[in-house]
Amino acid sequence: MIITIEPDSEVAIYVQLMNQIIEGIAKGDLKPGDSLPSVRTLASDLSVNMHTVNKSYHELEKKGIIRIVPKSGAIINEFPSINEQSKEKIYKHLKPIVAEAFVLGMTKNEVNSLLNKIIDELKR
Amino acid sequence: MIITIEPDSEVAIYVQLMNQIIEGIAKGDLKPGDSLPSVRTLASDLSVNMHTVNKSYHELEKKGIIRIVPKSGAIINEFPSINEQSKEKIYKHLKPIVAEAFVLGMTKNEVNSLLNKIIDELKR
Repeated sequence: MIITIEPDSEVAIYVQLMNQIIEGIAKGDLKPGDSLPSVRTLASDLSVNMHTVNKSYHELEKKGIIRIVPKSGAIINEFPSINEQSKEKIYKHLKPIVAEAFVLGMTKNEVNSLLNKIIDELKR
Repeated sequence: MIITIEPDSEVAIYVQLMNQIIEGIAKGDLKPGDSLPSVRTLASDLSVNMHTVNKSYHELEKKGIIRIVPKSGAIINEFPSINEQSKEKIYKHLKPIVAEAFVLGMTKNEVNSLLNKIIDELKR
């Protein structure tokens, strides 16, 4: 999978990296059990600071998406089925964005179409 | 409208406040032209630091949702219709959350139901 960092984005680089890894897993480009590149390798490939890659990996670990194993590196976890706590977390992250979409003038249908576009991009 | 701050949440207090104001506008509890309480009043009502409220207001201003007018305070903007730039911003915020939902085991249908629940809560 190809990771693209936009240095001028308003989204912090470690968040961009984290989001692209999450999208890669959602799409199936990265699978449970796969190892992520070492912090050093990825930092060098993307021309970003090692601390930035490290921060992404630690945030992914906090979210329960990867585990960091000494010597083996960062490994993608298995996700059996959604639990109520995760669902609640997604709900809490999703709601303010949908609210912002309405405030900025999107209609229900536009929000639904946008979601379906995203679902299609992630789950082909 | 009632604003509830969860001090123990992993979401920063200024973000909680900002999100609830956005949700209030989406629901129609707050309307374009309405003034938000002064920073001092809201900080005191919610028992949070004035800097926290100030930060929320400035982030809302950066998003183009309110304008801060000297002496008059924070006023909610009019939103005529969505533009491509805003739509792109919403897309960029929405996509990583949907990806995370899939990674954590939600199905397409579950994501769609969750979105429809949120739409119903915001647009009755």
